[in-house]
Amino acid sequence: MKRPGNKTNADTPPPSYGVGSVTFVGAGPGDPELLTLKAANALAASDIVIHDRLVSDEVLELTGAQAVLINVGKKGFGPSAHQDDINALIVEHAIAGARVVRLKGGDPTVFGRLDEEIEAVKAADISWSVIPGITAASASVAAIGQSLTKRGRNASVRLLTGHDMKGFADHDWVALARPGEVAAIYMGKKSARFIQGRLIMHGADRATPVTVVENASRPDQRILATTLDALPVDLGAAGFDGPALMFYGLAPRAVRTTLIDFSQQELA
Amino acid sequence: MKRPGNKTNADTPPPSYGVGSVTFVGAGPGDPELLTLKAANALAASDIVIHDRLVSDEVLELTGAQAVLINVGKKGFGPSAHQDDINALIVEHAIAGARVVRLKGGDPTVFGRLDEEIEAVKAADISWSVIPGITAASASVAAIGQSLTKRGRNASVRLLTGHDMKGFADHDWVALARPGEVAAIYMGKKSARFIQGRLIMHGADRATPVTVVENASRPDQRILATTLDALPVDLGAAGFDGPALMFYGLAPRAVRTTLIDFSQQELA
Repeated sequence: MKRPGNKTNADTPPPSYGVGSVTFVGAGPGDPELLTLKAANALAASDIVIHDRLVSDEVLELTGAQAVLINVGKKGFGPSAHQDDINALIVEHAIAGARVVRLKGGDPTVFGRLDEEIEAVKAADISWSVIPGITAASASVAAIGQSLTKRGRNASVRLLTGHDMKGFADHDWVALARPGEVAAIYMGKKSARFIQGRLIMHGADRATPVTVVENASRPDQRILATTLDALPVDLGAAGFDGPALMFYGLAPRAVRTTLIDFSQQELA
Repeated sequence: MKRPGNKTNADTPPPSYGVGSVTFVGAGPGDPELLTLKAANALAASDIVIHDRLVSDEVLELTGAQAVLINVGKKGFGPSAHQDDINALIVEHAIAGARVVRLKGGDPTVFGRLDEEIEAVKAADISWSVIPGITAASASVAAIGQSLTKRGRNASVRLLTGHDMKGFADHDWVALARPGEVAAIYMGKKSARFIQGRLIMHGADRATPVTVVENASRPDQRILATTLDALPVDLGAAGFDGPALMFYGLAPRAVRTTLIDFSQQELA
């Protein structure tokens, strides 16, 4: 457990706990303004915030002064806290009477391992609920000025992951390879060459646009516009090391934002 | 154009306009707490808010006192404002110098006809940007305590529409009919029998769970848990007349929320 110096210190008296609960909260893609009002309220009222590595410092600043922050960060393909340990941590604090916020990057219902944690909380008979968040696909597509769906182009969109429990994730490549398909690929950087190979093998046009958005909505956001053919080379050259969302079937539309800035506005 | 009595009146002096702009804003599913902070700020700073029918009154209350609200509501399969007229309205006000918010239910990038409006704004050389919102699938799956994706069950999820420009929308029924698939079906009420028929024809298990969430996140939210087999009959009996999101492949998990209520909390 970590108590960051700027939030609490060891002399702070323990919070007065009541009946414990767990709220699974979507932190959104990084920009703290992309949290929902409900998520911000939950953070402000929490006793314990158990968060992933991908949750930005600016979002964590929305927690109340009384809250203790615990980082259980996990990184794709790398070392990670064991899910069982995270489950136990959540349950332990809720049983002690804390209002626990389990804060997950993006939307907890999208590639968030939410079910495993809910089952642990349910088994301990603890109250729980879910506050949705802006998922990376939504923030990233807004950043490139496109839509996930478009009349006359695609009447459906897939959110899929580049890797799963067994390694590279298998998908319905035949259907994805058809013209007009759009997919938002999470955790796809390491599997870009695999995905490219499978799609081309199943007949996808090598000129299909592919866009990669790194650090969507954050000040260091970067956008790579490429094609299915050039994806592995261009992605390697870009050297993205932040979280990235890959769009298959979408090219960026130039966004004119110079004159629009609501960031200095106070909330009414 | 409509000026609601509780927001502005005819004696209000015209706002001092500057350089016009258009912000496409996701209003989320209905609960005003499910707007992002950024969306709330944009509403507070807007001169003109052009909104869909599905945007709730509680969300519209977040607009500043100076804002003029224009309802261009559209309803699936029913009469609607022409898209060209909506495009013209947006452009007209932005050229006049207004900070226009184009407010769309849910997330503007998901079945929101966003591209057509962006193209009109671009053609008029007006500054624009997109603020994402919580889409109905995300709010609805949170309401039933489930995930859109789950390790070992589905490594992808589809968002699809029940009808498109040509009527009932066609989809990759073979792939959807496989065990473990999950799809969030927008505007699916009228096409429920068509979707059921296509899926069963392609080998889907009639016992596959289907859940329909009406008015997700709103006080009058209702949840129907059924199966693919019983879907048309149960949906007819439920008589839903609000916006509904249908999950193919998901059953509700009982959510324990009795003891969690952040709604009275002030934002930190």
